[in-house]
Amino acid sequence: MFSKETYTSRRKILNEKVNSGLILIMGNEDTPMNYRDNTFRFRQDSNFLYYLGLDIHHQAAIIDVDENKTILFGDDLSVDYIVWMGAQPTMRELANKTGAEETQPYKNIETYLNQAKSKNQEIHFLPPYRTENMLKLEEWLGIKVKDLPNQYSKKLVNAVIEQRSIKTQEEIVQMEDALTITKEMHVATMKAAKAGKKEFDLTGIAQGIAVGCGGDLAYPIILTVNGQTLHNHYHGNTLQNGQLILGDFGAENAMHYAGDITRTFPVDKTFTQKQKEIYEIVLNVENTAIQSLKAGVQYKTIHLQAGRNIAEGLKSLGLMKGDLDEAVAAGAHALFFPHGLGHMIGLDVHDMEDLGENLVGYREGLERSTQFGLRSLRLGKELEVGNVVTVEPGIYFIPELIDQWKSENKFNEFINYEKVNTYRDFGGIRIEDNCLIKKDGYQVLGPPIPKTIAEVENERNQ
Amino acid sequence: MFSKETYTSRRKILNEKVNSGLILIMGNEDTPMNYRDNTFRFRQDSNFLYYLGLDIHHQAAIIDVDENKTILFGDDLSVDYIVWMGAQPTMRELANKTGAEETQPYKNIETYLNQAKSKNQEIHFLPPYRTENMLKLEEWLGIKVKDLPNQYSKKLVNAVIEQRSIKTQEEIVQMEDALTITKEMHVATMKAAKAGKKEFDLTGIAQGIAVGCGGDLAYPIILTVNGQTLHNHYHGNTLQNGQLILGDFGAENAMHYAGDITRTFPVDKTFTQKQKEIYEIVLNVENTAIQSLKAGVQYKTIHLQAGRNIAEGLKSLGLMKGDLDEAVAAGAHALFFPHGLGHMIGLDVHDMEDLGENLVGYREGLERSTQFGLRSLRLGKELEVGNVVTVEPGIYFIPELIDQWKSENKFNEFINYEKVNTYRDFGGIRIEDNCLIKKDGYQVLGPPIPKTIAEVENERNQ
Repeated sequence: MFSKETYTSRRKILNEKVNSGLILIMGNEDTPMNYRDNTFRFRQDSNFLYYLGLDIHHQAAIIDVDENKTILFGDDLSVDYIVWMGAQPTMRELANKTGAEETQPYKNIETYLNQAKSKNQEIHFLPPYRTENMLKLEEWLGIKVKDLPNQYSKKLVNAVIEQRSIKTQEEIVQMEDALTITKEMHVATMKAAKAGKKEFDLTGIAQGIAVGCGGDLAYPIILTVNGQTLHNHYHGNTLQNGQLILGDFGAENAMHYAGDITRTFPVDKTFTQKQKEIYEIVLNVENTAIQSLKAGVQYKTIHLQAGRNIAEGLKSLGLMKGDLDEAVAAGAHALFFPHGLGHMIGLDVHDMEDLGENLVGYREGLERSTQFGLRSLRLGKELEVGNVVTVEPGIYFIPELIDQWKSENKFNEFINYEKVNTYRDFGGIRIEDNCLIKKDGYQVLGPPIPKTIAEVENERNQ
Repeated sequence: MFSKETYTSRRKILNEKVNSGLILIMGNEDTPMNYRDNTFRFRQDSNFLYYLGLDIHHQAAIIDVDENKTILFGDDLSVDYIVWMGAQPTMRELANKTGAEETQPYKNIETYLNQAKSKNQEIHFLPPYRTENMLKLEEWLGIKVKDLPNQYSKKLVNAVIEQRSIKTQEEIVQMEDALTITKEMHVATMKAAKAGKKEFDLTGIAQGIAVGCGGDLAYPIILTVNGQTLHNHYHGNTLQNGQLILGDFGAENAMHYAGDITRTFPVDKTFTQKQKEIYEIVLNVENTAIQSLKAGVQYKTIHLQAGRNIAEGLKSLGLMKGDLDEAVAAGAHALFFPHGLGHMIGLDVHDMEDLGENLVGYREGLERSTQFGLRSLRLGKELEVGNVVTVEPGIYFIPELIDQWKSENKFNEFINYEKVNTYRDFGGIRIEDNCLIKKDGYQVLGPPIPKTIAEVENERNQ
């Protein structure tokens, strides 16, 4: 974890923003897999990690704004437990590490909250996403689980988003670490891929590296010969010559910062001419979008520009036609690029998505579009110094979607369905990097990962 | 999945045992990691896998005993969803695969259950362990979450345990598959270990192999230089010469059957004399216990015999003393062997633990002991043909426990604390295999995994 000073200063800032009442930050519990005691790997809540840093289950903290102190709730372990789990730091030691002024047994939270209620102190809490924590909030606060989505503190949520959106230098170091591991994962899969292997031969290699570096996956691996399926988590296909492999995965490092990288490469040692043509469009779109990043620019503008550039590329291949301004405004290019250009990233791969996608990525006066394609853009607002964002354009040929649009004669004036049909078994290509926003530009985080056709083919031939 | 006939015949047997009313079998949901849509890998409920075989989230089944039919509840996907997740089988196709007579949308479960209640049909359900499913049961049945532990159907639980306790030949094939992968995992860690590496270098290799075989881990890996810590999941230590590595891990194969193997080996290429002496005791105890397995024998008897053999070995080294019958009856040997000899294994590593440890491992007239050590024995009852059990004796030197007992002058007549103290940095040794119970004996499942000192040292020197 970071130093005590990091956490106390983060809490001090939050304290000032929220200004009165109590702030309740709940840690996560172990989660049962197939029975209570056989659990998934423990993943601490990101807000708890950000403000307390303690990577331990069954903890919670109250930042008492009115009393200006942090109380850490959790339980010391009995000797019986130490026999099974090994010696663990005491609650007092944990409080020292994070700079909390006080510790109390976990069960005291309810009493503390009840006292606050009787003193009319406002209790600020974040929207829960784990049902275990929902049930606890129901018990502690008397708010029914189904009413919780509307009763969390908007003031607290906005304060947390404002703070976590700007990454500090020590956070950037961690994100670069996650990306160093992520590079290893991608390069290893590129080297290992060949016809006859299964997709899960490669996911095993990638996850093994993430775990072997003291972390794990930041999100379920997408690694597929069906790259046109955007969130494909099936890994049972056998790799065949002529196919493309789309790999979208990244490490969560030991400090739980996420990397999120996509690369696409052929099962063969080299790309075909047809694959190269689409690849070059996506690569140019990605590079252009990255070069447009800087503080003050609306991310939505960069997304729309990327859409326009994709449309231009597709027109040059005869897949689109007509007036491209009109086509992009109408969303015709979304047949090939149906998702957003990127999102915030940090402790979460979609950073702070638990707090509300639109609160993180939009603002008052900038509403999220309902148009197919554009509505999937998670991040629309002006970029700020210290934001870290993904840039991840792609071109896909989704047979189900092509057939649906064609049968509806949708955008006949912009889409050359006859030509598109010759690409229906093409799959999809996406290229993605993670970028820090600076005052006058950007920094691509992490070590370079093979990206140009020459670089990728070179890796495939080693 | 297995054939339709397997699932229909399993449900038919269950039907007959339960005899009246409705049987509700709930599948699992995806579980949020750090926000709703970033989930852990999906793990289906084992009972749902056993009776329906469908490895898909957000499904449930009602076996209507009175109507003699199975209704599968779940939802077909929209084209929008197919764009993101790829083409998926329809509910009708899934019903065909598992032999269900009928499908209905998921939301209809509540109506179906309400109709049953109005007809006074008994609704049998299993004890839930995922809070998502607890909340659903609360909503559907009007039973508060905290009351659910007492209101599940004992009749159904007993019927399921009776059935799942006896593995069929096609299940054994799957368990051997899980153990084939598990062997690879163990051998690879043995080959890779050396001083200077981290524990997580090895866990990465092991998990990578499990994932790379289309499965995952059956339970969180225990791989540690602190083998005396029985459920150690910290993997950040650097391996040092002189240490032992205790690795307790196994694959869950693609069909979700578990392997559960422990091996212990030195960081050096060879065991020290002191390590060899303890290792040989554990190995002999394990072999003797395995050779005692057969239908009709009480597993508790084998556990107690193993305890007695451990005590004999420790006495020969001067670590224990006095009358060993008395020592073992009093539980003095549990200082070194504080856990049970083994447990049932199948779709779950502790098979059916969600249904109740004592219902699975004990029976009326055979109560679980409260004595330290013996109370941790999960399986006590008579073995039956078709049971699959683990056999996993161990000897540990747990400094915290040694100090506690010594300060209490506990079992001074049986334990030579002065000598024990010379082993306090020894760590722990456990050796474990998985065995099928036969009429006149046993079969160790899976391929042989290096186990004798010669075999292990041979693997370490390759």
